[in-house]
Amino acid sequence: MNRKSKPTSPPPSYSSSTNNNDDDNNKTLKILSSLMARKSSLLKQTLIACVLFILAVYAFFNAFFTPSDDNADSNARVTSYFSRTLDGISPNSPKVRIYMYDLPRKFTYGIIEQHSMARGGLVAPVADVSSLKYPGHQHMGEWYLFSDLNRPEEDRVESPVVRVTDPDEADLFYVPVFSSLSLIVNTGGGGASSSETVRRYSDEEMQEELVDWLEKQEYWRRNNGWDHVIIAGDPNAMLRVMDRVKNAVLLVSDFGRLRPDQSSLVKDVIIPYSHRINTYTGDLGVQNRNTLLFFMGNRYRKEGGKIRDLLFNVLETEEDVIIKHGTQSRENRRAATQGMHTSKFCLNPAGDTPSACRLFDAIVSLCVPVIVSDDIELPFEDVIDYRKIAVFVETSIALKPGFLASTLRAVTTERILEYQKGLKEVQRYFIYDHRNGTVNEIWREVSQKLPLIKFMINRDKRLVRREPSKSDCSCLCTNQTGIISSL
Amino acid sequence: MNRKSKPTSPPPSYSSSTNNNDDDNNKTLKILSSLMARKSSLLKQTLIACVLFILAVYAFFNAFFTPSDDNADSNARVTSYFSRTLDGISPNSPKVRIYMYDLPRKFTYGIIEQHSMARGGLVAPVADVSSLKYPGHQHMGEWYLFSDLNRPEEDRVESPVVRVTDPDEADLFYVPVFSSLSLIVNTGGGGASSSETVRRYSDEEMQEELVDWLEKQEYWRRNNGWDHVIIAGDPNAMLRVMDRVKNAVLLVSDFGRLRPDQSSLVKDVIIPYSHRINTYTGDLGVQNRNTLLFFMGNRYRKEGGKIRDLLFNVLETEEDVIIKHGTQSRENRRAATQGMHTSKFCLNPAGDTPSACRLFDAIVSLCVPVIVSDDIELPFEDVIDYRKIAVFVETSIALKPGFLASTLRAVTTERILEYQKGLKEVQRYFIYDHRNGTVNEIWREVSQKLPLIKFMINRDKRLVRREPSKSDCSCLCTNQTGIISSL
Repeated sequence: MNRKSKPTSPPPSYSSSTNNNDDDNNKTLKILSSLMARKSSLLKQTLIACVLFILAVYAFFNAFFTPSDDNADSNARVTSYFSRTLDGISPNSPKVRIYMYDLPRKFTYGIIEQHSMARGGLVAPVADVSSLKYPGHQHMGEWYLFSDLNRPEEDRVESPVVRVTDPDEADLFYVPVFSSLSLIVNTGGGGASSSETVRRYSDEEMQEELVDWLEKQEYWRRNNGWDHVIIAGDPNAMLRVMDRVKNAVLLVSDFGRLRPDQSSLVKDVIIPYSHRINTYTGDLGVQNRNTLLFFMGNRYRKEGGKIRDLLFNVLETEEDVIIKHGTQSRENRRAATQGMHTSKFCLNPAGDTPSACRLFDAIVSLCVPVIVSDDIELPFEDVIDYRKIAVFVETSIALKPGFLASTLRAVTTERILEYQKGLKEVQRYFIYDHRNGTVNEIWREVSQKLPLIKFMINRDKRLVRREPSKSDCSCLCTNQTGIISSL
Repeated sequence: MNRKSKPTSPPPSYSSSTNNNDDDNNKTLKILSSLMARKSSLLKQTLIACVLFILAVYAFFNAFFTPSDDNADSNARVTSYFSRTLDGISPNSPKVRIYMYDLPRKFTYGIIEQHSMARGGLVAPVADVSSLKYPGHQHMGEWYLFSDLNRPEEDRVESPVVRVTDPDEADLFYVPVFSSLSLIVNTGGGGASSSETVRRYSDEEMQEELVDWLEKQEYWRRNNGWDHVIIAGDPNAMLRVMDRVKNAVLLVSDFGRLRPDQSSLVKDVIIPYSHRINTYTGDLGVQNRNTLLFFMGNRYRKEGGKIRDLLFNVLETEEDVIIKHGTQSRENRRAATQGMHTSKFCLNPAGDTPSACRLFDAIVSLCVPVIVSDDIELPFEDVIDYRKIAVFVETSIALKPGFLASTLRAVTTERILEYQKGLKEVQRYFIYDHRNGTVNEIWREVSQKLPLIKFMINRDKRLVRREPSKSDCSCLCTNQTGIISSL
């Protein structure tokens, strides 16, 4: 598939069996895009006219009034994304330019095939990748980002980034590996029927091969990876090769499996899990929400997730609380949907790592999240004040018998409505297939890293050898005060 | 002086005795601004027409085609500077809004008075602050930033930030204290004649009083200072109160006196010293540059600056090298100007702290800087690749007898010309009174911190108490390889 010479065919849609509201979404999207097509040509003409006029005035000004010693052209050699030639983009807000690698098929569609073959859905690789369906799961953000950059640029006008096909024009390089899907190719047990004929898939081999390939790329070597963006949504994704890719901007769910020198809030971007239960479309209010607090999920987890069993002990005797053990299945997802759509609060304890997909299910359910996970990091926190949409409770306080239930019972309906209103307002941030949703917000956050990336690229190359004892880290530290509960 | 109700009078110019090329600059500026005034009205009309049209199309689109659940208005409550109402600024690139505190006079003009009184220039405070002249010195960046924000907004169209007079509209708050001038009020010895009558000035008291004042301000308390910008150009400025202001974005020359939890490349902005010798206006080339390497400055410094004496030992016997001990004086400045304008390379060893003003004198002199300061941090390094304009040499290597002089002698004229071309291109970044110079670049860098600032503000308020043993810092770390010499 050569993306440079011909326009790509629209990417295949993800498996429709995984989201029950896909059909409705598709219809709405079709109607919307036909409306937008008509309207956008008017808009486009106007914009082009305006931009051309502004450019003409700018060029006139530049040619006649700029003293020669600070002529814009003469700055071209200086590494700067502010002094790029104008190409219809306002000089004050050039969109960040992303080049998406045309990865060898085994790192993208090949993983979908392997996943399907391991489950008996396919018996052999297919000729036409458009027949492949990315399976639904909580880390399908990697699919949405890949699909977004594959859309024609005219459909991407609202995006904070522009895709370029010439790597020389790029500010950043996106590596669209399906690293989280790769992790679960062999899980699930089923599909043994077909897998005998195929060599057993190895996620770790995939990781090694990807980085071997990457390290051969001119643009990776040029800046030692600093200007690359790699998705590793599952806390275990890409873990084997993390030390070789750590300079890149990593798109991660949390830092549960990563060392502080590999990943940080400063360098990387926290992305949300893809919600797995349906968006609540009813009215705000508590009339149909008779359950005080709801939780359904695995009672027993490792590490930080040990809190779960303790919370079960404290909460399972409370009358208006539903707290149930359950693993991922279509049936359980239906029960969780029902529970989250009919409860005032939804419990979000830590899992094996501080984050869990349940938070994003709660948000789209307008079920006020009660977060009991002291080390959690949250997506888009520069623009979202989570105290307005969630309740934070320190773990040791949440475990005091009676505390959580009685505190939540005391919250007024008015206050719950305020939380719900806040949740409704930020819903789009957590919907990957929203036209101005998660995908755009992730690119926005990635774009904001660019000055720091450019800085690290320049600085790294001129740093002289220092005493090995001196660590060379720049940090942003919080004051260690902390709240006990945000209620 | 009430800045809200009436336009401010133009700020007084800084002492004309300090920069010999002021008059020329002023004439050029006057001609330029009269040209710009004519042209800008045409430009403005066009822009207004375009913006209005775009807004109309946008409003039409918004009213008819946006599904109600993601209406832009409904996002207003979410903390976001992207969802601000449009006010003639492109929604993709809203300028960052800065509120400048109208500080009590003792923190701004009062310090100029004290400085002048201590030297016998004034006998008592003046009634009209416009008669006060800010004295020339290497940290006068604090004067230029203050003056810039005092200019009428119509003169600031090229600035990356817009000044707002209502603090409720502000993204960031600038504290325009003359913290570096305050440090030197009592230095210099002279002027005892008048100082008997005045209580001896105390910089440390000034610092305490400033922070006492700041901590009473609603907008400081609201976000614990994270969204404030404080200038502390001299490495010793504001040092006594650093722990109370460390959340702010600090404008600093280096981190020589600061702990890693107080200041960092991630949180703060490195600003250049104000150059103290004249810009070289001649042609590129080496015809009139017969000296290989030039240095004039204090041979004996503390800490990292001990390197200087060692470099003297190694270099003072080289024939084509001029290395002279000299302290700040008008006469020495004249000699340094002469030396820097007639040398190919200028030596920049560390001072008491890693940075030194000499680097910026070398840049405007087109004298290729030779930086021997392993821990130096450099301004605007996201857009400037310093390897293109300077030579970096590891300290221990630079001290090898014969190494530096012979290495520099081997640099071809062609290569020197390339360095000079690079220096010429970036000169404007280091000229505070350039219409698109240092001041704009500082505001640009400050603006880029906003997402991180908003993030810290939101995150800090919801963080639950953690184990005290866990540090809560997010870091950006370099690989510790390092070069020995960039030549």
